[in-house]
Amino acid sequence: MERIEHRACFGGWQDVWRHESTTLGCTMNFGIYLPPQASAGNSVQKLPVLYWLSGLTCTEQNFITKAGAQRYAAEHGVIIVAPDTSPRGDDVADAEGYDIGKGAGFYLNATEAPWASHYRMHDYVVHELPALIEAHFPASDARSIFGHSMGGHGALVLALRNPGRYRSVSAFSPIVAPSQVPWGEKAFSAYLGADRETWKAWDACELIATASERLPLLIDQGGADEFLDKQLQPERLQAAADAAGHPFTLRRQPGYDHSYYFIASFIGEHIAHHAAALRA
Amino acid sequence: MERIEHRACFGGWQDVWRHESTTLGCTMNFGIYLPPQASAGNSVQKLPVLYWLSGLTCTEQNFITKAGAQRYAAEHGVIIVAPDTSPRGDDVADAEGYDIGKGAGFYLNATEAPWASHYRMHDYVVHELPALIEAHFPASDARSIFGHSMGGHGALVLALRNPGRYRSVSAFSPIVAPSQVPWGEKAFSAYLGADRETWKAWDACELIATASERLPLLIDQGGADEFLDKQLQPERLQAAADAAGHPFTLRRQPGYDHSYYFIASFIGEHIAHHAAALRA
Repeated sequence: MERIEHRACFGGWQDVWRHESTTLGCTMNFGIYLPPQASAGNSVQKLPVLYWLSGLTCTEQNFITKAGAQRYAAEHGVIIVAPDTSPRGDDVADAEGYDIGKGAGFYLNATEAPWASHYRMHDYVVHELPALIEAHFPASDARSIFGHSMGGHGALVLALRNPGRYRSVSAFSPIVAPSQVPWGEKAFSAYLGADRETWKAWDACELIATASERLPLLIDQGGADEFLDKQLQPERLQAAADAAGHPFTLRRQPGYDHSYYFIASFIGEHIAHHAAALRA
Repeated sequence: MERIEHRACFGGWQDVWRHESTTLGCTMNFGIYLPPQASAGNSVQKLPVLYWLSGLTCTEQNFITKAGAQRYAAEHGVIIVAPDTSPRGDDVADAEGYDIGKGAGFYLNATEAPWASHYRMHDYVVHELPALIEAHFPASDARSIFGHSMGGHGALVLALRNPGRYRSVSAFSPIVAPSQVPWGEKAFSAYLGADRETWKAWDACELIATASERLPLLIDQGGADEFLDKQLQPERLQAAADAAGHPFTLRRQPGYDHSYYFIASFIGEHIAHHAAALRA
């Protein structure tokens, strides 16, 4: 494992590390913000970790340069880990289009060729990456997860699939019903195949119906989001949560679009929400 | 004048406008953050304006996407305007290298061919742009200025050259002595010619000696800045300010580098500093 960026930021360090992922079979980068509390004094207390999952086309860089999260992570003493959005490298399958292949891993384990050999972002984010973080940094096993768009889908699905694994979950402008919108249908057809039954295990609207853990879901959705009607449709998850009696908060934010300007405006509230759960 | 971006951000709007600059003879973009106070109620009170000048290679985008300034501008009710760093377009002279030509206007009025016809960033930032801002937005004529690296040089020089024009000035990692460091020597040789006497009018260390206005200078400088020893050398301005009895605060911030991670960490303190002067 090699540190490739090391930047002082709000009294802590915004670092980027590169490592060989056994789960993905390729070299991966991840961002990690270590707040000032991570290096205070000699006896370092282990800190909780908040995982951020980015959206289509992103690498680990988008969140760490644009979200303005470091200020709040420093205030709350929380580590934030931001992985890349897909496996990378010349050996990894790709395809035309920003919404499939590299930069578009959808946080699932692919079953179909040519994707199945590397596209295992679920296992990477849920298992390999936390094991690495908790072994190499002053990180406790208190974990929460959030994300944006495809990464909002990822956060919801990973939390719903892995009860007990996360203390809290939230999302900005998530894809909540991938089985029923163009982005999801394209990705799931490729990664999971034509049998839509298999898609249900990766769809928050389906998973919430049978969730064994009632982890409250917090979602912020911009009212001027250019993808709202066609790709996001948060009312589908609202209906599924209502039907299941699952605690769910959907905050519609008028005027905000799909960009990091939206994320930056509310990231402080999300981090405070997670910090409260992580410290409880 | 055409609005090409319009993004809700911290209750206000981060916009980008495009216009034909008569001073520069080309089409220019600028970013403008309009805080919530700019659209509150029907009788809009005019708000003070803080100008940000970016460094080498930047456009108007770097600051508006990476500095995290909008939160603080919203808190203080200050408009922030971020121009591009040079004239642009196919008709505009350019040269090899990131530190000359496009993206490297150095906030001066060039006198030498082929630069003199378009490279007039001083007049653009000091005169044309504020006239435009104060005519088209709810902006008062209370102005302050700050910037980074080449833009820190720009902020210092524009404030020192134009007494009474700005209420306050600050800089991150500024080029303080362009006549004596490689970046400045290369740019000034091209834009101003071989006669170093003419350079003095664009060099903060020279201007401070004869400044008629004792506007306090606030500078933050990262201790791990990769350009510190060769290009920045803030101790030169410290010495010039001490000799002139000019109020000067140099804060060395250990561990911080030249990046926007450094800027983001202290931009809130700079905006608070300017807001106090603008409201006084």
